[in-house]
Amino acid sequence: MSSSARTRLQRSNSSSYIDRNVQVNEENRQNGHATGTDVNQRFNDEIEEIKRYEDFTTIDWVQDAAREQLRRKSRQQESQAQRLRGFGNIRQRLWKLYDAGQAWIVVTLVGIAIGLNAAVLNIVTEWLSDIKMGYCETAFYLNQNFCCWGVDDIDKGCPEWHQWTSIYPVNWLMYLIFATLFAFTAAVLVKAFAPYAAGSGISEIKCIIAGFVMKGFLGFWTLLIKSIALPLAIASGLSVGKEGPSVHYAVCTGNVISRFFVKYKRNAAKTREILSASAAAGVAVAFGSPIGGVLFSLEEMSSYFPLKTMWRSYFCALVATAVLAGMNPFRTGQLVMFEVHYDRTWHLFELIFFIIIGIFGGLYGAFVIKWHLRVQAFRKKYLTQYAIPEAVILAAATALLCYPNTFLRIDMTELMEALFRECEGNYDFHGLCETSNTWRNIISLAWTTILRTALVILSYGCKVPAGIFVPSMAIGASFGRMVGIMVQALHDAYPQSTFFSSCEPDVPCITPGTYAFLGAGAALSGIMHLTVSVVVIMFELTGALTYILPTMIVVGTTKAVTLYFPSGGIADRMIYFNGFPFLDTKEHHAFHVPVSKAMTPVNSIALLPATGLRLSNLTQLLTETSYSGFPIVSDTTSRTMLGYIGRTELTFAIAKAKSNRDLSSAAKCIFTSEERNIPPQTPSSIAPPVTFDDIDVAGTVQSIDFSNFADFTPLSVHPQLPLETAMEIFKKMGPRVILVEHKGHLDGLVTVKDCLRYQFQVEAQERGGTSTTADHARRIEIMETWTWETIVKISSWLGRLVQRFTGGRIKLTGDSSRDSVGQLLQEDSRDLRDHNQNYNGSHNILDDTETELELEEGDHRR
Amino acid sequence: MSSSARTRLQRSNSSSYIDRNVQVNEENRQNGHATGTDVNQRFNDEIEEIKRYEDFTTIDWVQDAAREQLRRKSRQQESQAQRLRGFGNIRQRLWKLYDAGQAWIVVTLVGIAIGLNAAVLNIVTEWLSDIKMGYCETAFYLNQNFCCWGVDDIDKGCPEWHQWTSIYPVNWLMYLIFATLFAFTAAVLVKAFAPYAAGSGISEIKCIIAGFVMKGFLGFWTLLIKSIALPLAIASGLSVGKEGPSVHYAVCTGNVISRFFVKYKRNAAKTREILSASAAAGVAVAFGSPIGGVLFSLEEMSSYFPLKTMWRSYFCALVATAVLAGMNPFRTGQLVMFEVHYDRTWHLFELIFFIIIGIFGGLYGAFVIKWHLRVQAFRKKYLTQYAIPEAVILAAATALLCYPNTFLRIDMTELMEALFRECEGNYDFHGLCETSNTWRNIISLAWTTILRTALVILSYGCKVPAGIFVPSMAIGASFGRMVGIMVQALHDAYPQSTFFSSCEPDVPCITPGTYAFLGAGAALSGIMHLTVSVVVIMFELTGALTYILPTMIVVGTTKAVTLYFPSGGIADRMIYFNGFPFLDTKEHHAFHVPVSKAMTPVNSIALLPATGLRLSNLTQLLTETSYSGFPIVSDTTSRTMLGYIGRTELTFAIAKAKSNRDLSSAAKCIFTSEERNIPPQTPSSIAPPVTFDDIDVAGTVQSIDFSNFADFTPLSVHPQLPLETAMEIFKKMGPRVILVEHKGHLDGLVTVKDCLRYQFQVEAQERGGTSTTADHARRIEIMETWTWETIVKISSWLGRLVQRFTGGRIKLTGDSSRDSVGQLLQEDSRDLRDHNQNYNGSHNILDDTETELELEEGDHRR
Repeated sequence: MSSSARTRLQRSNSSSYIDRNVQVNEENRQNGHATGTDVNQRFNDEIEEIKRYEDFTTIDWVQDAAREQLRRKSRQQESQAQRLRGFGNIRQRLWKLYDAGQAWIVVTLVGIAIGLNAAVLNIVTEWLSDIKMGYCETAFYLNQNFCCWGVDDIDKGCPEWHQWTSIYPVNWLMYLIFATLFAFTAAVLVKAFAPYAAGSGISEIKCIIAGFVMKGFLGFWTLLIKSIALPLAIASGLSVGKEGPSVHYAVCTGNVISRFFVKYKRNAAKTREILSASAAAGVAVAFGSPIGGVLFSLEEMSSYFPLKTMWRSYFCALVATAVLAGMNPFRTGQLVMFEVHYDRTWHLFELIFFIIIGIFGGLYGAFVIKWHLRVQAFRKKYLTQYAIPEAVILAAATALLCYPNTFLRIDMTELMEALFRECEGNYDFHGLCETSNTWRNIISLAWTTILRTALVILSYGCKVPAGIFVPSMAIGASFGRMVGIMVQALHDAYPQSTFFSSCEPDVPCITPGTYAFLGAGAALSGIMHLTVSVVVIMFELTGALTYILPTMIVVGTTKAVTLYFPSGGIADRMIYFNGFPFLDTKEHHAFHVPVSKAMTPVNSIALLPATGLRLSNLTQLLTETSYSGFPIVSDTTSRTMLGYIGRTELTFAIAKAKSNRDLSSAAKCIFTSEERNIPPQTPSSIAPPVTFDDIDVAGTVQSIDFSNFADFTPLSVHPQLPLETAMEIFKKMGPRVILVEHKGHLDGLVTVKDCLRYQFQVEAQERGGTSTTADHARRIEIMETWTWETIVKISSWLGRLVQRFTGGRIKLTGDSSRDSVGQLLQEDSRDLRDHNQNYNGSHNILDDTETELELEEGDHRR
Repeated sequence: MSSSARTRLQRSNSSSYIDRNVQVNEENRQNGHATGTDVNQRFNDEIEEIKRYEDFTTIDWVQDAAREQLRRKSRQQESQAQRLRGFGNIRQRLWKLYDAGQAWIVVTLVGIAIGLNAAVLNIVTEWLSDIKMGYCETAFYLNQNFCCWGVDDIDKGCPEWHQWTSIYPVNWLMYLIFATLFAFTAAVLVKAFAPYAAGSGISEIKCIIAGFVMKGFLGFWTLLIKSIALPLAIASGLSVGKEGPSVHYAVCTGNVISRFFVKYKRNAAKTREILSASAAAGVAVAFGSPIGGVLFSLEEMSSYFPLKTMWRSYFCALVATAVLAGMNPFRTGQLVMFEVHYDRTWHLFELIFFIIIGIFGGLYGAFVIKWHLRVQAFRKKYLTQYAIPEAVILAAATALLCYPNTFLRIDMTELMEALFRECEGNYDFHGLCETSNTWRNIISLAWTTILRTALVILSYGCKVPAGIFVPSMAIGASFGRMVGIMVQALHDAYPQSTFFSSCEPDVPCITPGTYAFLGAGAALSGIMHLTVSVVVIMFELTGALTYILPTMIVVGTTKAVTLYFPSGGIADRMIYFNGFPFLDTKEHHAFHVPVSKAMTPVNSIALLPATGLRLSNLTQLLTETSYSGFPIVSDTTSRTMLGYIGRTELTFAIAKAKSNRDLSSAAKCIFTSEERNIPPQTPSSIAPPVTFDDIDVAGTVQSIDFSNFADFTPLSVHPQLPLETAMEIFKKMGPRVILVEHKGHLDGLVTVKDCLRYQFQVEAQERGGTSTTADHARRIEIMETWTWETIVKISSWLGRLVQRFTGGRIKLTGDSSRDSVGQLLQEDSRDLRDHNQNYNGSHNILDDTETELELEEGDHRR
């Protein structure tokens, strides 16, 4: 075939596409709405305006990307037109530059804001933590570090820094009072102003970055409250960390700032690139680990565009970390929380212990995830109304239990620093380095490990800002140090054995600090199921480069252990638990069924015929069903597929048409671009014959043209396509819906929710039918009821107490304060569920399955 | 709709899918070929067998993934069947375990092999490099380091290590002779045994991992020759590095080892996961940087599955590095090539110089890429026959020019180590730390930078194993150190100026070593356009954690500069230059045209009607056309799309059918699964009426059923879908072909090649028509011709010389030795081009465009 013939053919093929815009412009001009180049702009704006997605829906990556292409092209055309007319050249160029640089401006601003916020939070947190123990004589606003500036061994204190009293029980009480007060304040703030500020937020952000819409989750109030409540929560001594919340407030910052820029305000998919970069900055400032942050964002957060945003994440993390370093909140001149330098290297025989530590990390992760989910299920069932008492009781209990043990009393970051360090020179942390204390230390560290684990399980889901990174690392460090001390004791006992033959004489052979370091990495990897990020974070945190191979081996072992619990890290499990529509990109399934097996078949979808529908039919359809979109077909019997239109678009188009002119409810609805060219006077053979209803006063047929709002090129697949391939399309391309089409006829449609529903069904079948499951569930039920009754008793007593003390001004329990925000918090998770249920119409099966699953959370997918 | 009704509907939808396997089994059983469970296995094997792709084609990720699912499912069913029969339990379980663990076994073996190979190569390279300078008295096989074991300052030598003579010119000559000899041997080896072992290999591997098939590129001979020739090439003193070739031999190792495992032998897509992991191990052992390797593989290599193979890459890199560390080739106990520890931190005012270094990195990259491509175009045009003389001349010239300058004479890795180090204590490398030498050092370093850059441009494409990482880093380090020395001189001259006010008195303020360190990072980033990997590699290489922020700033600046040259790093540019069908995942286009504009329209494709085709028609079609696949339609007029069949599959099926029974050339070809059920006695209305030709001796209609080999669920899109979306599908899903379908009718098909062709056309149009282009081209032409004539003269003289010396046994130029391997090397690139041309039939336009582009390489896409 000659190339000219071919070009001709291509041109004829593409003409309708290109002409669409022109037609619209002409149409608009005829309507007298606007003239000139701004029509094009207006058209785009309009389209973009309605792309604001509704709450608890998923965005359409494919369409948003196409829209961004359209925007760019229209910008190009505009500037070309202006160049031809020969004016506005400099202004135009500046505008173009600004448009191109918008992403960088946003990322820079976001980075600066995150860095500043992190610096302030660090200072406040440290002061609040120290005030529990004592105060500074020089000035009350100084923390212990600044108060004792210049003193060598800060742990021993200095003359300016006073404990509250010299009596141990009174100090304990002060500690308890402050801890409770902080927790109370944090919980009240969260409950009253920003329920979404509770918890870690990583699971939700993961879903949001993957395309889920949760309004308010990244809003200004969440940002503010999370920033205020986070230092309080950490200072309260609860076993919670600041990393998850750091990511959350960073992403909030990204979201709030990007709202000010048109490019991001209009495009939900583009905004997610900024959010991904912000997440990297969040981890970067939390750990002082810029590259670790980028990798975390890459490995955990951005499932849809792993590499695309890497460079932006890099830049954002760099800016944030540089600002933080510039602020220098610790006055150490160090970016990292604590730098550790190991003089000695490791020996081959230590590998055995490293592997033990790695296995511990994996088991720790599995154990904590399992029990945490149980606690969450319990909390969801009974405790949603008692968020404040819960936090207060937990803080009080933590303070009571932890104060007597030095390792538990101090801040978890300080603990890690102490545990990581080598016993070199005269450094000794509360006798940790004295060999005479070996047994005391081992028992103390074992107790720390166990108690902290229990507290983490209970505290992580608590309704205050709460992360799980640092607590996990602290637990790992305690365990690691314990192992290290044991190995050291073993070496001291049998220095001549062949096992220790590679040790040099007269030099300390075992460095327990390195075991603690490795333990921290293992536990972090075990809970999050991350590998590369953990290694990089660990060695950015400490600079212990000599230990890179052991770190990799330990983290590798942990990862291998977690492969036996293949349902993902705690973030993925929480997503599953909450029922968000999220397909894990790391998971792989072998269903070996065609996509038609999982699709919603054509007879349970509402189809829109391209012509022939009246406005009244349409409004009825919209009110009676809750489908989030409708396939457009030539007619409902032949079902020749023409396109797809979303509910939002439809509603918007109707509202717009109504605002422009008086519409009779009998107006014709036209959904196809092909029919539009036919003048209404000569109806095509497909369209129904003109009746009297169609003719309005002026004698012309009234019609609404929806074709601007419909998608005529939705992704479609063959019904026999393997379901796995369809799931890959969802994971990689990110459409909202895939139409199932056979020889041009619509057979059904499939959404992420459909895929997940099928997956759950298969999993339930694979598990199902064993009697032990029921017994197990009953046993848990009994235990839960008992716990529940006890908690109700305690909290109602506490509630009455507080109410009496404050003269009834502060009411703790939700029962007595049913204000709207409180209500929202209580019904938070339930709401979410309900919303999801409505998400795509008639999918009740998913929720039924989930309810069944709930009690079995710990065992599912094994 | 009730759920039971729905299930019924789904069942009826999916029955044909599930039944297909059963039907095939039955068919096979009727034919008496096999019985029982092994039929299923056999069927799968057969399908897999023919999925061995032809050379210079692209694999189909979607189909390969589906195939892997099928394999897994059949394994599951098998084991269930065996469980029911109640025997072979333990053996079965062991087999299952082995099957599941195959990936890990392969990755471990690959890692070990790569680690061992790297250790041996390191030792050989060091010895070869040192032998140029002198020899060890104790034992000739010891290199300088081992010879002078225990001596403090190795650079000053030791009594056991002798230079060849004490006369400078004779040493120079010895250096020259050795260098030339090494280069000669390397080039001869490459030319004679494995032409693919030349160059870096990163571009090609990138394409291969993305799905391109290049037979032999990862074969055993390439592995062997690359491993032998690499130390020679590096020791020859050519300005080439070992990192690219390390990746190449690592990936070869991965490929060779995975061939021994059925799972990988059969599935091209699965093999690519191993290759990706091997690439990580390659970088890991080259730099002693395991995490850097993983990130390199992620950022540069694995475009299709960034996160999926992360954990495997991690494991493979860990094993390889651990083995290398265990072998301890440097006897330093260090994993890294050189550990640098900076005592001093940086000052804010230094940022200005850091940014200058960053800008240099970006410009260096752009400059080298531009000129390297020009040299490559020249080389392709004139030098393909003169690979050996070229390498020899280059090595000789390099040796001649470099020997007088200390910085140029020594190994580039040693140079970097010297440049990176702080001037602390009594460390001084050839007067680098003496302030009296400032000007001499600056000039010497400037000369090193310039000459090395020129040599890199000339040497990188040379037909010996050649990488560009280390040379770039060495150049960056020279430049950086030069800047550092200048700043230091400035500080020494004006110590009291406000600019230097943050410097502490009486302490060295500027550390030129850190500038060298940053320069190395900048140049590496500039040439490869990488960010995160470079930062991690740099600080795994040296452990300079305090400098993480400056490193990030420098690399960030470089990246920002490279954004002005937005065509990707040198690997991407080489891909573009060689015309491989590769869609860069990082690039984004805004064509704003529908896919129909770029597709091959239906009238230039050969369509196969589902029924009615005779075997003779089909064989004619196969011989007369070179299409790599054929869409299957109901009939050629209505063009209702049914499926797609590849040429390989078709050829295989015909061969198989012929081997089984005597086939008349009039046998009916059936391509549809639907038609199969109709008995041949009652032809459907679509099929042509039965003629006498159809009836064979036995009186039945002969037919071949191709439906097992066809894909009935190919990905298809609407003709109006934006081209960008189609390209995203190629990038993310990786199908070989996307069919373009409108209302069930085929409109055309689109391949990666079609997309690239359209992209090149658009780019050519955007550039085209300026008169300066032609002038420019003519100027280059003249210059090239002149250079060419000079080179021919020199090389023919050299050729005669060698021929005379060796008595005609070694012939250097390709003209006189037109053996088959030489021929292959010469026509290497041309072959590739031709193959590409045939790759999908009639696409000549791409190649025309490319030829036009060739001269303009340096300026394109600006």
